[in-house]
Order: sequence, then structure tokens, then C-alpha cells
Amino acid sequence: MAQSKLDAVIALAKRRGFVFQAGEIYGGSRSAWDYGPLGVELKDNIKAQWWQTFVRGREDVVGLDSSVILPKRVWEASGHVATFVDPLVECLSCHKRHREDHLVEAYEAKHSKAPENGMADIVCPDCGNRGQWTEPQEFSGLVKTFLGPVESEAGLNYLRPETAQGIFVNFNNVVTAARKKPPFGIGQIGKAFRNEITPGNFIFRTREFEQMELEYFVRPDEADDYYREWVEACWNWFLDLGISEDNVRRLDVPEDDRAHYSSGTIDVEYRFGFQGSEWGELMGVANRTDYDLGTHTEASGAKLQYFDQASGERFTPYVIEPSFGLTRSMMAFLIDAYTEDEAPNTKGGVDKRIVLKLDPRLAPVKAAVLPLSRNEKLSPQAKELAARLRKRWNIDFDDAGAIGRRYRRQDEVGTPLCITFDFDSLDDNAVTIRKRDDMSQERVSIDQVENYLAEHLGV
Amino acid sequence: MAQSKLDAVIALAKRRGFVFQAGEIYGGSRSAWDYGPLGVELKDNIKAQWWQTFVRGREDVVGLDSSVILPKRVWEASGHVATFVDPLVECLSCHKRHREDHLVEAYEAKHSKAPENGMADIVCPDCGNRGQWTEPQEFSGLVKTFLGPVESEAGLNYLRPETAQGIFVNFNNVVTAARKKPPFGIGQIGKAFRNEITPGNFIFRTREFEQMELEYFVRPDEADDYYREWVEACWNWFLDLGISEDNVRRLDVPEDDRAHYSSGTIDVEYRFGFQGSEWGELMGVANRTDYDLGTHTEASGAKLQYFDQASGERFTPYVIEPSFGLTRSMMAFLIDAYTEDEAPNTKGGVDKRIVLKLDPRLAPVKAAVLPLSRNEKLSPQAKELAARLRKRWNIDFDDAGAIGRRYRRQDEVGTPLCITFDFDSLDDNAVTIRKRDDMSQERVSIDQVENYLAEHLGV
Repeated sequence: MAQSKLDAVIALAKRRGFVFQAGEIYGGSRSAWDYGPLGVELKDNIKAQWWQTFVRGREDVVGLDSSVILPKRVWEASGHVATFVDPLVECLSCHKRHREDHLVEAYEAKHSKAPENGMADIVCPDCGNRGQWTEPQEFSGLVKTFLGPVESEAGLNYLRPETAQGIFVNFNNVVTAARKKPPFGIGQIGKAFRNEITPGNFIFRTREFEQMELEYFVRPDEADDYYREWVEACWNWFLDLGISEDNVRRLDVPEDDRAHYSSGTIDVEYRFGFQGSEWGELMGVANRTDYDLGTHTEASGAKLQYFDQASGERFTPYVIEPSFGLTRSMMAFLIDAYTEDEAPNTKGGVDKRIVLKLDPRLAPVKAAVLPLSRNEKLSPQAKELAARLRKRWNIDFDDAGAIGRRYRRQDEVGTPLCITFDFDSLDDNAVTIRKRDDMSQERVSIDQVENYLAEHLGV
Repeated sequence: MAQSKLDAVIALAKRRGFVFQAGEIYGGSRSAWDYGPLGVELKDNIKAQWWQTFVRGREDVVGLDSSVILPKRVWEASGHVATFVDPLVECLSCHKRHREDHLVEAYEAKHSKAPENGMADIVCPDCGNRGQWTEPQEFSGLVKTFLGPVESEAGLNYLRPETAQGIFVNFNNVVTAARKKPPFGIGQIGKAFRNEITPGNFIFRTREFEQMELEYFVRPDEADDYYREWVEACWNWFLDLGISEDNVRRLDVPEDDRAHYSSGTIDVEYRFGFQGSEWGELMGVANRTDYDLGTHTEASGAKLQYFDQASGERFTPYVIEPSFGLTRSMMAFLIDAYTEDEAPNTKGGVDKRIVLKLDPRLAPVKAAVLPLSRNEKLSPQAKELAARLRKRWNIDFDDAGAIGRRYRRQDEVGTPLCITFDFDSLDDNAVTIRKRDDMSQERVSIDQVENYLAEHLGV
């Protein structure tokens, strides 16, 4: 995928209000991004599809929404305080800091080989000096804060770097309240925070981000089967929502690169088209074994185990974890949907057209109501139709400018249907509905518009 | 409202998995609560109703999802660094710290008068010592953290104490991208964090919480009218979703008690039934004037103003802000729905019944499918029906225990409809649907169940 397509998507996302830079009027922050009117709808639609597919729509999964801030003890037990660290090096010339592994990866991507002389070969991306680096130091990726009336060790808390731990520590609560037994899962969508040294690539790597995670608890001897099953289910979720199979791939993560808790991880990567490295991680499925329930049992004294009344057996379930980056998924859906083609113009020729071919279930605006012209008869009736449809869907109303231009505006934000209200509508009580992808048009009776939308939108 | 009802609701919420204590297995945190399988569904339903009523369903409002962490400069400009402070006093005997204003309020609630001798009259709630307090010190309610590779002033950021500022700093972005002009609003749902000295009253006062906020931008001369209009709209939203008018009241907040930005605030309070003070704030509507856009314009240099092309006039809009506590709203809906009545038992007598009379739109489980007994013929067909309904609604399936007991389990979590699959169902292809509130039953053909649910649930 061309870098230019990535640039075009980022430009579109900023221009049309999908994504804004956080704190832009104060010079902006690289830590996070804000989601504008279209971005919040698209993101919510992705969440809703995920929740429906993996939580609400499944008999064997329930939801949870646990807190962002958790005491230090949770993160000590989970292994994050000790192992959630990255090697940090500082340029001796300009004193900017970088992650050593990121510098090496960038070198490898550029030269197609490892640096022969280690860090001595690596040029500082900030000042251009070569090979002048401090020894690597361990740097914690945990974001810390203090709660309570005194800023002391007693009030030290961490913002979660993953939503998963909130699920593990609630294992017994959920088993009891929801009366679940393995195999069963607990799903959660929420914010997580990591003190990334070098955030970048638009909404791909940020310090504040959103995850959609599910912990699926199984008998240890069934873990491998469910691991494979979840990889398929996650893969299919992206394809079903329109991601092209050419732009995703699976990576069996080698042992050295896996997180400390994982005995096996398969990442699903998307062809984002980043400079240097084309592919980026979209989600991963990990076999976390009994690591998490085991360590929390040991540290807390609570028995995070399952007692099977039928067999009289007590065991610590293994956990299969599908973990999705929500904002990364959103970026992938945007890139995959971005298309440039041609549309006929009024002069008998063709114009370039930008169209986001988003699945209608994800499209931020489901339909636009467009009175042919700003007219005292057309506008009120068109507004009335828009208001009626708005009871169920996110509907745009636009009466400014030429109709062709208004179509283009809807096409480039992925609105599946445009409903044009013209002077004939006053007589025949019908409207013209135009489809985004093939630009075909149909005349539909006004009292059938809701049924037509329900049928074509799938939501 | 009796304290015992509040206690009953809290007990039910914990027992049935609406709300768990955060980090419970490590002794628990008072800072936050976790929302279990039923809690997350109820909370999401409240969010969805709010978003539909005030954002997606309105032509004049768009949504936003801005970041939690924002640089210090934003909070200096907003006035929070200087004024978001509380007076803190320490007991000279036990060294526990308290908010001075909360101690005085508690005294007034108990004695129906102000303490004549000021703090000299006030007893420490921790050790019982009277009148031994330090002078009050200013304590910031902002939760701070550090981002970036060095823990220094340059990396100092604050977790937002309200979602509103993310809206103000994006004012120009939204006006341009969404092509809006006053009067128009920007709505947002998200987490906020305040370093409360004394969190308490279950999910009412926590350090991590969720807000549903809307900033409605208007011409200055129209601000008073819209202020009143929004108070009505918010009030009606609660009533429409089932809150009893007896349990809400409006409070015109006196000038001294208003936030620093407000020229007028009306709080909607709910009769939570807390010990000491029965009523608690549910939401507030404030006239924030041009304070926020003005201070950010001054501090950032960006002109957060609106230029009216028709009149050639440039002005700083006034802001009317309806600000809802999401978790407080959830608590109010739970308390208001909590009912104890009687249901017939199998012995010809009556049993006490607990029923949550939640509006069907809010109910976490929309319907339960209950095969009359665990049977190899009934169960598969009942499961098939449940799976079909699950494509659209959150559906429970329960085949454990006596049918009466299963009805009670659904009643106490507010499930509006129970669908019983019995042996006749195998012949007549029909099921019995029982309504939660009046326990009436109807025989409904299986192929009509989806229509029946759509009609009775309103979602």
C-alpha cells in the first residue's frame, strides 16, 4: 500500500472531523488524539459490532467494565512493575531519549540487516550523530499517579496498561454472580495508558488508547484448541466487516518477543503502509496459560480457581486472550475503505471521487437527507423526514450547495445512502435514494424509506 | 426514602453482579468501582439513551470523544489549577485528613444549625476528638501524572476532572469540520478523575467516575432562554426513563456555592437516602457564559469565536452546560426501580418478591428464555430461540432450578420478559411470555416472539 494512501487517509480524517490532535490550540500533544463528530460515531460502531459479536451475541461470554486506576499491588502481582520495562538509550550529543529496540528495528527495516557493530552503527534520528549512546537503562511503561490526601508511596497507583488485569482480579466475582463455568469469557472495552517513549504513526501508537479485550477461561487441556478457534474468530471479524484479505496477515510471535505471560501469541497485522515498516499489529491472541490467575492467587490469597461440582475437581483455568487495539482497528477500517474512483459531472465528463467504502454497519452517518434546493416547500418536508429517521440512525441533513458537491461530501465520509428530496417529491410522495458505492439511484415511496434503510444498513 | 432501601439496593447490586469493589481481592479501593456483567449493560443502556436523546437524535448536536490526559497549560487556562481546590483540615489527635466543608455540612445536617463556635464544635469522625484541627490548607482535586521519558515538570499532565475542557479546546475544529453554527451543542461521554479526599456513598462519590456532558453554544442574549430549556429537557429525560417525580427536586445553587465559571446553576437532586443527607446531586445545568472560550482564547491565542457571515458579526458564544453523573444516574435508576411486593407461590400462598421495575430500555437483560425443565427435547429448541433473539438483544438462558425461583432471579435484576418453553411448545410451537411487573402471562407463537419483544421493549 502506498504511503500516499496513508497520508490521504490522515488528511481526510483531520479535515472531516474524524480525528483531531489533542490540545491542538496549545501546540498539541503526541500522547493522544481526540475523536471528532464522525470519529466518535465510527469508533462507537466498531465497539458495538465487537460487543455484539464477542459478548452480547454469545451465550458463553459476559461483559465487565473495571476501573482504570488500580493499586500498586495489582501491578506487582501481575508482573508489570518488574517486567513492563523498555531499554532506553540517550544520545550523548543531543540528549534526546529513544527506545533501543525501536532504533535497531528501524535500522533493520532500512538496511535489511542487523547493525553489525550494534549501537555504534546507529544514527540519532534527532541530531544525526552516529553511534554516541548511553548504555541502555530500564524504563517503566507504567503511568503512575497518586491518590489520597498526601503524595506518598501509600497513595501510589498505576493507570492500567491493559484492561485484562481488571478481568482477572474479578474472576471469582463474575463466576459467582453470573454463574459461569469454563469454557466462558469476560469481555471489556476501555481505555489503557502506556508511557510510550516514541508515540507516533497517527493514532497507531499513543500513550492513551482504547482496547477491546476478552479473557476466555478454559480447562488447561483444551487451551490449544480454543487458542486456534479464537484466532479464526478474530480474523473473520475483520474480514466480515470489510477488511480485505490482502491487507492482513498472521504472525506467530517468536518466544523472545512474546509478553512475559504468554506461552503462544499470534498477532494479526494490517498493512498500514507506515514508512520503514509497512505492517503493524492490529490485535493479538495469546495463550496466557494459568499465569495471571496463578500469580493473583499467590499474591492476594484469594483462590482464583474453578471448582467443578460434577467431578469434584478444582483447577486453575488457562486463559486465551484476544486483545484488540480499538483505535488501530479504526485506522485499519479507514485505510481499507479509502478509494479513489471517478464520478460523472454535470458537464458530461468525469471528476475524481474520494469514497470511503465502509461497511454500512460501521459508517458514521447512515444516510443523508438532501433537499434538491433550499426552498420553503422542500426544506420543511425534508427536515421532517430526517427527524423521523434520526429516531433510529445517525442522519445528516445538508441543503448547502450543488447536489453533486453534496454527494461528494457524503461519499468521502462513507455515508451509504443519500436521500434526495426534489420537487416531484411534493407530488409523488417519493424520494430518490442513491447508493454510495455504485452511485445507482432508486425511487422509493416516502413511507417505505425506513424499511429501505433497515434492509440496506443491516442495523 | 428509607436508609434500608439504599442498603438493599447496594446489597443486590453486589450480589447480582451490577457493581463490584475495585481491587477487592487486594483489600479493595475506595477510589473506584467495577461494573459487572449486569452493571456494564445497564450503564451502556443509560449511555445509549442519553446519546440518542441529546446527541444523535438532535439535528443541532454532534458528539466528541476527547482525551483524558491533557497538558498542564489547558488546566491553567481553564482555572482548574488555581481554583479546583478544597479546604483540608487534619485532626491533631489521629492525623486523619478531612474536607472542612464536608465536616461542617455533616454537622449542619445532624444538628439542623451551623456550628456556633466553628471547627471547635466539630468532632473527628475517625477518633472522636472534638475541636482539635489544623488550620485549613488548600488541596488540589486534580489528579496528576507524568508522561515522557523523564519525570519532570515538562511531562506534568493532569487527568481531566471534567470532560468539558476537551470540548472547549476543540471548538474551532468542530465548527469547521461539522459546519455548525450557534445554537449548537457538542456532547461527550467519558471518564473523569478527581482526587476526592473522602470518597463514599457507594458509587456516588468516587475518584474515578463517568460523566455525560454537553456544551451548548448560543448567542449571549439567548443564553437565559436556553438555560431554562435545558433544565426542562434534562428533568424530563429522567422522568421519561422512569424516575419518580417524588424523588427528584431542583436546587438553584446560590452564588457562593457555584463553580468559578458559572453565572447560574440549577442542580437536579435525587433522594438517594444517604445517612445524614437524604438528597444528592444527579446532574447540573450551568450557564458558563463566555468564561471558557474566553480564557482559552486568551491563553492559547486561538480565536474561539464564531463569525456570522450573514451579519458580519464576530462573537464569543455563551455556553449552557448540562452535566450528568453517569454512575450517579445509574444508582438513581436502581434505587427508583427497587420494589418489594408479593408473588404467589406453589403452595397457594404468597412469597416476598424483589423486583427492579427498570424501564425496558434500561433493563440489562431484555428477556430470559427458560425451558420448563432440563430436558433433551426442550433445551435444544429453547437454546435455539435464545440464540436467535441474542442477535438483537441481551438474552439470558436459565434452565437451573424451579421455574418460580428462576422468575424471582429475573425479577430482581429487572428482566422485563420471561419466555417459558414447555412441553406444549413442542406441539403448538408457542411459548408463554410473562411480564415482570404484573406477572401476567400470554401465549405467543414462536415465530411472533421477535415482533412481540420489539413491541414491548422499545429498543
